[in-house]
Amino acid sequence: MTDEQFAQLRSQFQIPENMVYLDGNSLGALPKMTQSHMTDVISRQWAGELVTGWNTCDWIDLPLSVGDQIAPIVGAAAGSIVCCDNLSINLFKALAASLEINNARTLISVEAGQFPTDSYMAQGLASLVGPERCQVQSVDVDTVTVGDLKHSAVLVLSHVDYKTGTLRDMGSITKVAHAAGSLIIWDLAHSAGVVDISLAASEVDFAVGCTYKFLNGGPGAPGFLYVNERHQHSQNPLPGWMGHARLFDFEADYDAAPGVRRFLTGTQSVLALNAVASSLSVFDGLCLTELRQRSLSLTAHFIALWQKSALLQGDSVIVTPLDEAKRGSQVSLALDHAFPISQALIDDGVVVDFREPNLIRFGFSPLYNTLTDAERGISSLESIITSKQYEAPQFQIRSTVT
Amino acid sequence: MTDEQFAQLRSQFQIPENMVYLDGNSLGALPKMTQSHMTDVISRQWAGELVTGWNTCDWIDLPLSVGDQIAPIVGAAAGSIVCCDNLSINLFKALAASLEINNARTLISVEAGQFPTDSYMAQGLASLVGPERCQVQSVDVDTVTVGDLKHSAVLVLSHVDYKTGTLRDMGSITKVAHAAGSLIIWDLAHSAGVVDISLAASEVDFAVGCTYKFLNGGPGAPGFLYVNERHQHSQNPLPGWMGHARLFDFEADYDAAPGVRRFLTGTQSVLALNAVASSLSVFDGLCLTELRQRSLSLTAHFIALWQKSALLQGDSVIVTPLDEAKRGSQVSLALDHAFPISQALIDDGVVVDFREPNLIRFGFSPLYNTLTDAERGISSLESIITSKQYEAPQFQIRSTVT
Repeated sequence: MTDEQFAQLRSQFQIPENMVYLDGNSLGALPKMTQSHMTDVISRQWAGELVTGWNTCDWIDLPLSVGDQIAPIVGAAAGSIVCCDNLSINLFKALAASLEINNARTLISVEAGQFPTDSYMAQGLASLVGPERCQVQSVDVDTVTVGDLKHSAVLVLSHVDYKTGTLRDMGSITKVAHAAGSLIIWDLAHSAGVVDISLAASEVDFAVGCTYKFLNGGPGAPGFLYVNERHQHSQNPLPGWMGHARLFDFEADYDAAPGVRRFLTGTQSVLALNAVASSLSVFDGLCLTELRQRSLSLTAHFIALWQKSALLQGDSVIVTPLDEAKRGSQVSLALDHAFPISQALIDDGVVVDFREPNLIRFGFSPLYNTLTDAERGISSLESIITSKQYEAPQFQIRSTVT
Repeated sequence: MTDEQFAQLRSQFQIPENMVYLDGNSLGALPKMTQSHMTDVISRQWAGELVTGWNTCDWIDLPLSVGDQIAPIVGAAAGSIVCCDNLSINLFKALAASLEINNARTLISVEAGQFPTDSYMAQGLASLVGPERCQVQSVDVDTVTVGDLKHSAVLVLSHVDYKTGTLRDMGSITKVAHAAGSLIIWDLAHSAGVVDISLAASEVDFAVGCTYKFLNGGPGAPGFLYVNERHQHSQNPLPGWMGHARLFDFEADYDAAPGVRRFLTGTQSVLALNAVASSLSVFDGLCLTELRQRSLSLTAHFIALWQKSALLQGDSVIVTPLDEAKRGSQVSLALDHAFPISQALIDDGVVVDFREPNLIRFGFSPLYNTLTDAERGISSLESIITSKQYEAPQFQIRSTVT
């Protein structure tokens, strides 16, 4: 894609003037068309169609139709993804289904240092079903071997680490898990939309993700669940009526719908799903390989600028791999005073975020970030460190988030 | 409240001209202020504040703050409700917590004829934890005795039956359950907002509900979960990071937040929750006892008109209790050709819905329905039956919903 094409892509997003937004890895920016689409959904669909909108506006199929929009972005076949609930709940479904499928084993392997909700859900499942049916072990996924997984029913790990931005090799780790007789669940929260992903070709068993980061579905937008076709017969441990084969017959007993639809729970938010549907349409006609190249050119530019800065080399360390093959779409710096510096950056119009204990994450969306954004990020950081303006009292206050 | 006050209330809703909307028991109408609020949430909060909106716009506390808006509508204390996920998932949490609390027992009692998602979730939990830890029995809640529940860990039942519109006596059935040593979970899907409910005074253990019916939160709007203060120490079986005591410390182990917050799972939709927040503000300053009176006057008027119609008395049966104390906010008629007649009613601008096997539900919202709506419902039904216009081929086609 040309610079002009990227500029055209960026113009589809509403980003505040003078803001350098480097936190699309936490919350994606608003695609302009989503605003007008939501006005239509509320004023015409909800107000005008009322209950008949479930049919006339295809609300009932949104979890599947939005799933089919996500499928090409993650290398999955149509009909293998539902967009619903949130990542935590979808992971619970995938974990329980994995224990059912791989029923000679009882061990869930969780990546050490994983985004915590993933291990919390594994612990929750183990606590619910009891230690004789499920235990949880922690593994280092960057060195994981067949031996580490020889008792594992399922391994769950992040495709891109949320702190360091390290990208894991989906194909080879999936092979290790399978060689050990373990299933695998990939958490795509920080990779969907910015990395070329081949769930089907890599023979991944399950994958989960969220749509509010690089997919730009809006704050707290629904999660998604990929189920390999060979596992679509397995049980949903949260079998709400939306996953029933004949949901409007209101039968007393649960009879799971064929295909991935059985992984639905109860009724899903039509407003939330429509925002995702609209935001995903930005991806129509885009090539993930080109987006991945754009993402790498942005993070590489940021890293090159950092490497030219004696100040930053003295005061900070890049914890994100310099090797492009191992880099997601963010660059994380470890440095002293990381929290107040992150707040001073935000105050200067460079929106980043802080992660414990001493990290600042600079996230780059190939859809709307520019080389200039990387330059502004570096220059603002240099200026804040040099001036020590982060020492101002207002930057010391820890808020709930970011 | 005066007729003028009710007219003023109705004027806050956007209802299509010439439509008689009698399906607020399935999907509530759009409060006009919700449209403008959502434009603000999308264009100013999301687009303008971006990730900092989690703090600056209090997104992070929405499940609790919306829960506190629901609390007075259902007779609950502030801090005892979370608005999140959907009814099915919230029921799963309440069922698992009940088994943990009442751990000498393993039996879940489900109302016979319950809205099916409730029994599906009980079956799902039983299947997940295994028969030695959980079994499900069905009970007739209209005749339930202490003896029926003597082995029951928890009873789950609907406050208002979705088919017949029968209202159960929350106080007395809760006492029966407690006398038998069983906990109780009330499903408020069809009663919240139209019946005077006293969760705290009735000493209810748990309650679940949805916000898309009489609370007008929009299609598929989030569910809610009430947890009596005495049970707020119990475990959430779906312990996502949003229920952690220190969620932004990203600790490896789950440590549940104090209070009802621990019943959160993963990230919730800020768009969906804001629509609910806005729609619930219609209830500000309203008295539930007066709304209940208004609801009864509407259903009583409909019943009186039916009773005056020789045609309708010959062709249909009211399956909703004539006794006001046992009536929710709908009137259900059993009649031949119920499905095509329901479709002809909708075609005539009287929006109702059909439920298996032969029911048409006429739902009345005290916030926006009028006595004239009841009259139009009856006259349209008479005209459709007399003319046999329901025999037209287009009314025979079964769609997915309604």
